[in-house]
Amino acid sequence: MPRYALKVEYHGAPFAGWQRQKDQATVQGRIEAALAKLEPREHTIAAAGRTDAGVHALGQVAHCDMDGTWEPFRLCEALNYHLKPAPVAIVGCAAVADDWHARFSALQRQYLFRILMRRAPATHQDGLVWQVKHDLDIGAMQAAAAHLVGRHDFTTFRSTICQADSPVKTLDRLDITRVDTRHGPEMHFDVRARSFLHNQVRSFVGTLERVGAGSWTAEQVAGALAARDRGACGPVCPPQGLYLAHVTYEGDPFG
Amino acid sequence: MPRYALKVEYHGAPFAGWQRQKDQATVQGRIEAALAKLEPREHTIAAAGRTDAGVHALGQVAHCDMDGTWEPFRLCEALNYHLKPAPVAIVGCAAVADDWHARFSALQRQYLFRILMRRAPATHQDGLVWQVKHDLDIGAMQAAAAHLVGRHDFTTFRSTICQADSPVKTLDRLDITRVDTRHGPEMHFDVRARSFLHNQVRSFVGTLERVGAGSWTAEQVAGALAARDRGACGPVCPPQGLYLAHVTYEGDPFG
Repeated sequence: MPRYALKVEYHGAPFAGWQRQKDQATVQGRIEAALAKLEPREHTIAAAGRTDAGVHALGQVAHCDMDGTWEPFRLCEALNYHLKPAPVAIVGCAAVADDWHARFSALQRQYLFRILMRRAPATHQDGLVWQVKHDLDIGAMQAAAAHLVGRHDFTTFRSTICQADSPVKTLDRLDITRVDTRHGPEMHFDVRARSFLHNQVRSFVGTLERVGAGSWTAEQVAGALAARDRGACGPVCPPQGLYLAHVTYEGDPFG
Repeated sequence: MPRYALKVEYHGAPFAGWQRQKDQATVQGRIEAALAKLEPREHTIAAAGRTDAGVHALGQVAHCDMDGTWEPFRLCEALNYHLKPAPVAIVGCAAVADDWHARFSALQRQYLFRILMRRAPATHQDGLVWQVKHDLDIGAMQAAAAHLVGRHDFTTFRSTICQADSPVKTLDRLDITRVDTRHGPEMHFDVRARSFLHNQVRSFVGTLERVGAGSWTAEQVAGALAARDRGACGPVCPPQGLYLAHVTYEGDPFG
């Protein structure tokens, strides 16, 4: 069966996350339903990252197996037609080898987290950022983030329902930049690793926000990491500022 | 009565425009209702620009007259409290002189128009941009826009219901830039004048989009302007890409 890689953008708000569920709207469920309009049968797609409820994607990657051979542009257009009006869009489509796998072939996942810092309620950006009413000290957050980069046991920053075999992961990058937008100043977190534990990015950002607000020190974050204890984690931040931004493969299939 | 200038951000989608109407939700109506929670009586506020249904604002400016003296920060916070959950936010508040007027004291209005160019449906940006599925030739659009800048009779680019005394206005600026966003390439129109005719910006953008798409030439736009005939205008583009971005006053009250 010809296999196709799909690059997927979605708004997380109306969905109970990526993964198909019996009685709830999910992104996987919507895409599989659209595939069934093209080839009527059960479809099962695999994705690079199973995002939680409310989490967005700019560049989620999935793959599907089709009975027929599709011109990638046509497959993309046909899926977008059947996905409407759900806020899910196929923004790239490419034919890939039979043994190429959206999840297992991925070399790196890249997440973006946006914090909007202002007192007035968000209007255009409501649901697209995590809003805090205070300013954040970027230097303090960067110093704390430096303790997290590298290979560590991330038990502290892993949800109790995480199913990963090991809590040891290598965090390639955790960069924080201040960006002035039309709606006010934002902090953008660029977080990259081969793979992540469940709730790892939101545990990082929630804890680092406390550092930026002055209630934690960078050394306390280092101590929390060393404790390897979920109870040592700061608050887990809400999902609506989180975006699965990019997935890297050997030889970008969409390049 | 102490007078206060308000800088207002809003999402245009749920509103039948700025101006108060009997049986429809409007931005003016929502703000006046919030003011009535603070000082229970009828309130009437004036604004720099009476935006149409679906048009957004980043920096609309209005003024209100209060019975009591308010600390501007407190007035801002109290209004935002009572405006929730409407997507209207007071992002600036300042005490101004009794003869300062949001509409009549304004020296320049600045609008932003965003066109998103991509085939896949917008997800996060749905309702915040005008989406076209084709690429646009920025050089051709810039050449056409140059014909519009300056003092002209803009009858061609004025809606038939426009109530302005004269169709002669001075367009200070119509700059077009290409911006690469997380969601794809956009064209941003930066349009500035002391005042505008009704539907003038949307008539400009709709016509210039036709130039960018190759179906009009820059010379045809010059001819349409010279015709001083509403029938010579290109299509009026939809409202959801339009933002009242900034209003300039002598001595920025929010500075």
